[in-house]
Amino acid sequence: MADHLADPDEDVLDQDRIEAVLQAVAAGDSAAIDALLDPLHAADIADLLEQIGGPDRRALIRLWSHEIDGEILSEISDAIREEVIESLPRDVLAEAVRDLETDDVVDILEDLDAPQQGMILAALTEADRVAVEQAMAYPEYSAGRLMQRETVVAPEHWTVGEAIDFLRVADPLPDQFYHVILVNPRMQPVGYATLGRILSSGREVPLRDIVEASFRTIEATDPEADVAYIFNQYHLISCPVVDAAGRLVGVITIDDAMNVLDEEHAEDMLRLAGVGDEASVSDNAFKTMKQRLPWLVVNLFTASLSVAALMPIVASTGGIAGTQSLAVAVRALATRDLTAANARRVIWRELGAGVLNGLGLALILGLAAWGIFGDWKLGLVLGMAMIVNQIVAALGGVLVPLTLERSGLDPALASGTFVTTLTDVMGFFAFLGLATVLLI
Amino acid sequence: MADHLADPDEDVLDQDRIEAVLQAVAAGDSAAIDALLDPLHAADIADLLEQIGGPDRRALIRLWSHEIDGEILSEISDAIREEVIESLPRDVLAEAVRDLETDDVVDILEDLDAPQQGMILAALTEADRVAVEQAMAYPEYSAGRLMQRETVVAPEHWTVGEAIDFLRVADPLPDQFYHVILVNPRMQPVGYATLGRILSSGREVPLRDIVEASFRTIEATDPEADVAYIFNQYHLISCPVVDAAGRLVGVITIDDAMNVLDEEHAEDMLRLAGVGDEASVSDNAFKTMKQRLPWLVVNLFTASLSVAALMPIVASTGGIAGTQSLAVAVRALATRDLTAANARRVIWRELGAGVLNGLGLALILGLAAWGIFGDWKLGLVLGMAMIVNQIVAALGGVLVPLTLERSGLDPALASGTFVTTLTDVMGFFAFLGLATVLLI
Repeated sequence: MADHLADPDEDVLDQDRIEAVLQAVAAGDSAAIDALLDPLHAADIADLLEQIGGPDRRALIRLWSHEIDGEILSEISDAIREEVIESLPRDVLAEAVRDLETDDVVDILEDLDAPQQGMILAALTEADRVAVEQAMAYPEYSAGRLMQRETVVAPEHWTVGEAIDFLRVADPLPDQFYHVILVNPRMQPVGYATLGRILSSGREVPLRDIVEASFRTIEATDPEADVAYIFNQYHLISCPVVDAAGRLVGVITIDDAMNVLDEEHAEDMLRLAGVGDEASVSDNAFKTMKQRLPWLVVNLFTASLSVAALMPIVASTGGIAGTQSLAVAVRALATRDLTAANARRVIWRELGAGVLNGLGLALILGLAAWGIFGDWKLGLVLGMAMIVNQIVAALGGVLVPLTLERSGLDPALASGTFVTTLTDVMGFFAFLGLATVLLI
Repeated sequence: MADHLADPDEDVLDQDRIEAVLQAVAAGDSAAIDALLDPLHAADIADLLEQIGGPDRRALIRLWSHEIDGEILSEISDAIREEVIESLPRDVLAEAVRDLETDDVVDILEDLDAPQQGMILAALTEADRVAVEQAMAYPEYSAGRLMQRETVVAPEHWTVGEAIDFLRVADPLPDQFYHVILVNPRMQPVGYATLGRILSSGREVPLRDIVEASFRTIEATDPEADVAYIFNQYHLISCPVVDAAGRLVGVITIDDAMNVLDEEHAEDMLRLAGVGDEASVSDNAFKTMKQRLPWLVVNLFTASLSVAALMPIVASTGGIAGTQSLAVAVRALATRDLTAANARRVIWRELGAGVLNGLGLALILGLAAWGIFGDWKLGLVLGMAMIVNQIVAALGGVLVPLTLERSGLDPALASGTFVTTLTDVMGFFAFLGLATVLLI
């Protein structure tokens, strides 16, 4: 919260500012760094730290560490957060984590090693430490880890006037809140009213008359993917979190949900391409190699299986088709547009597309092979192998993620490389099998 | 807004309910359909319509069309919306679009043909039609198309008390609003205060003392990808939209921004996999084939180029490596973690990873070829071609999207298939070139 009016154009992170910062770092000029970084949003300062090289980053932190606060720390990507935390003086780190909300502290702790976790827990006040430890007791990637514990509640029988009077004298309210949650005497949420509706209603209006129709709750043990889904599907701004008995234990706001949605999407895309789901542009070459080499070695062997004069064409086209089918299915499962209700229809659709694509490609390849090698049987074998492999690819792309989903696993585990392997192997057998029958 | 308290567990769309609806449709039982669908959220009803087959969908709409309102219409996916609009009676359609906010009408109109657009515009009130036509005058995929025109503003010199009194008597306020926007006499936004801060501050406090530090504005002509980025980066809940002169023309709320973020991600993923960016599980097999066949034909030719005994291994592994590098780069460009400031370092990083991966794979493949064919020169050629192609793949994966970005194009246009083609061709030349020099 500023006590002055902001100028929205003043504070951007552009190329000029980054270069000016690097010059100030080289000159060891703390005052210049202050002037350049002070107007920036914490998220932009975090981006700057990620984008400059390791030596520059460490020099900048040495010169400017006293200004690194909790907000910057919580915006920094996991890939460099450990390094930054290690290079901060103890007292700066302690102050930084102390002004964070407990849900942000939990978010930072999750990705740290035990000794660093201990350092941060030790820096917290007693009450915050207990709160953080309670949150860490919820499963990883659950709603309980995401929620903030500070909530704004009112008894279900209150009027607008009673709520407004209460808010005016209430203990420090959360930084961000958009609803007053109505609870029954057992502390179970029964509805919520937006602040906008409260402000625009008469004092005598009962709160229960102005609650939102779209009210939902989420259980603290529910996976965070469900949180992202519910916010996106029902256009929520905040959502009360309850325990197994339906009692209010916290609230999740849309910025946390948007974050989860963003992370889930990144995971899907990186897995599809056969990169680990934690890949980041801040990783160095060795880390990058460690993420990617395993998939390349897998492909080395599957590609070796298809070493023959013409078969690679069938296998390679199948790999592309499988990845296409997979991308659509993984995406649809994430948005729950693909469910038990239409799985059968989508599978038939994929089968149809596989047959059609197979026929089209078979025609081109079969005629070309006939023309070039003057052997219509070879063209026929290639064409038939292409059709079989296109069908396998289209079906594999949808059946693999569906099977993972049914088994309670994340459908995005089905990487493009996995489906490519399937089509490499099938391309091999379809071609050799058909060739054995028809050509030999 | 309901006038009763909601039971959050009552209204879910599960397999049982879908089957019960289909039975009621088969029996022509409108009353049963009413009972099953009434408790559902509009987004779930839209999902149901997408998931059941075309004939069932048309039968359901015939039996239940009087209940299809604007909210359901705006939740339905583009893939089937035209069909639904065509099957609705004129008066139902008119009523449905009349209770929508103008930004939702714009969202629906964008994807329709001219005659259907005309039908919907004719159904609107005069004032709404003008508002919609003004919004449609902004470029496609711009902030102006996303924004709602209803805003809640206060002169910059007002106090909390004046704002609260104004809100209580104001004309119908927007359905969703989270801030009061402070404007100067020229109607330029200069800051905003959250409703929570207004409610918890004394009546005499000037609004300018409680404005948010994270205040930003966006221009109506800015692309919607920038809107999604700003909301995600700065954790905004709403953002004022201004014209070229900085005057307030509307406001975008986070649910719209979350929607855009979700769509952008889908686009990135589908393009990476070589599917059109409009692919949906609701598409039929022919439409699916039309989206996918062009990329498969491209791959057919590129794979044909690499028809030789061993070269496909080099080319295929390069294709995978290129896609890995590409996925990380496209993702980082979208989140602006890859900028001019660190492009050079990321390119060097990719080069390093390419060399390391190339060495590892060359060792495996070279030794295997030497062992199997008893020819160390062949192993050497294969290994060297592998190293060259891995470097090309790693660099191509980052340079292609970077070049597109520099040219003002969407980096996600760089599909996996494009980079695969690059590595197929390079694999071909590296292998044959080296073989010519060393083996012949």
